[in-house]
Amino acid sequence: MPHLHLEYTANLPELKADSALMRLNNALVASGQFGAELDIKSRAVKHETFRVGTSLGERGFVHVKLALLSGRSPEIKKQLSASLLAVIKDLGPWPAEVSVQLCVEILDIDRESYAKALIGQ
Amino acid sequence: MPHLHLEYTANLPELKADSALMRLNNALVASGQFGAELDIKSRAVKHETFRVGTSLGERGFVHVKLALLSGRSPEIKKQLSASLLAVIKDLGPWPAEVSVQLCVEILDIDRESYAKALIGQ
Amino acid sequence: MPHLHLEYTANLPELKADSALMRLNNALVASGQFGAELDIKSRAVKHETFRVGTSLGERGFVHVKLALLSGRSPEIKKQLSASLLAVIKDLGPWPAEVSVQLCVEILDIDRESYAKALIGQ
Repeated sequence: MPHLHLEYTANLPELKADSALMRLNNALVASGQFGAELDIKSRAVKHETFRVGTSLGERGFVHVKLALLSGRSPEIKKQLSASLLAVIKDLGPWPAEVSVQLCVEILDIDRESYAKALIGQ
Repeated sequence: MPHLHLEYTANLPELKADSALMRLNNALVASGQFGAELDIKSRAVKHETFRVGTSLGERGFVHVKLALLSGRSPEIKKQLSASLLAVIKDLGPWPAEVSVQLCVEILDIDRESYAKALIGQ
Repeated sequence: MPHLHLEYTANLPELKADSALMRLNNALVASGQFGAELDIKSRAVKHETFRVGTSLGERGFVHVKLALLSGRSPEIKKQLSASLLAVIKDLGPWPAEVSVQLCVEILDIDRESYAKALIGQ
């Protein structure tokens, strides 16, 4: 906890997923909501097969999903999504001909049934 | 919003993910539930590593997950899952020797903490 | 139902995802919670782009997400996550130089709107 998923469409060639994850993780650490930086587990997936809407214009998206152990207040969740959105807005330059939607979603992980172990130091 | 994820197993070679997404998006537009076709963001993932059950027969699956901003009624959700299931039932032909499970799941996105921005026109 | 997602980072080369899925499915069958072994649909995704925390040590993770039709008790969910965690703990050997986090998350699928069909025998 927390788990972050970054998804982005393949028509955004300038998006550097690796550094995007680092910046997203830094924003999470800066939020002060998480005890240990080690706990932040993030991954990125590039989608080659996608479709935005039904008309033919060139479109893409970047979607961040942040999963948190349940219990945080709506205000904290809003602050977290706003700070992550600020990071992804800054991931450009964006292709001039692509309409890009940026989204951040926060969801709860059921705290009671979450299980965890650590291997190694 | 909405976000659609299509997952399918690699033993369904006739499934054309690209046109499947277009048909699923068309079904969502036709539902009348979404203000703008542009809002529908769909992606497909083919799974090369999968396992259905524990016995050795050839099996596969197609799974659609539709994530909606919270607030829709159970009836609307049922209608949406039924119409998406109708689309994926029609994605064949299916391999004769594979038992294929088709599933549609609807889930809520927390509306309050959802954040969004649009780049470009 | 149920749906299992196994994610793991690419710096765990000894992890055999195929046999991991079989062992996870066997654990689910052994739990006695699922009527038919056929219902268990599992997939594995290896992440090439990931970031754990913000410091530079070599780190990785294995994350199992089990999605169940809503209605099971917290106790059952805890038992399921504990038994899945036991399986992934046993997936080593682990690279000596990587700190690996293992996590299991249980989440509900909305039962009312879940739709399903079966193609073939």
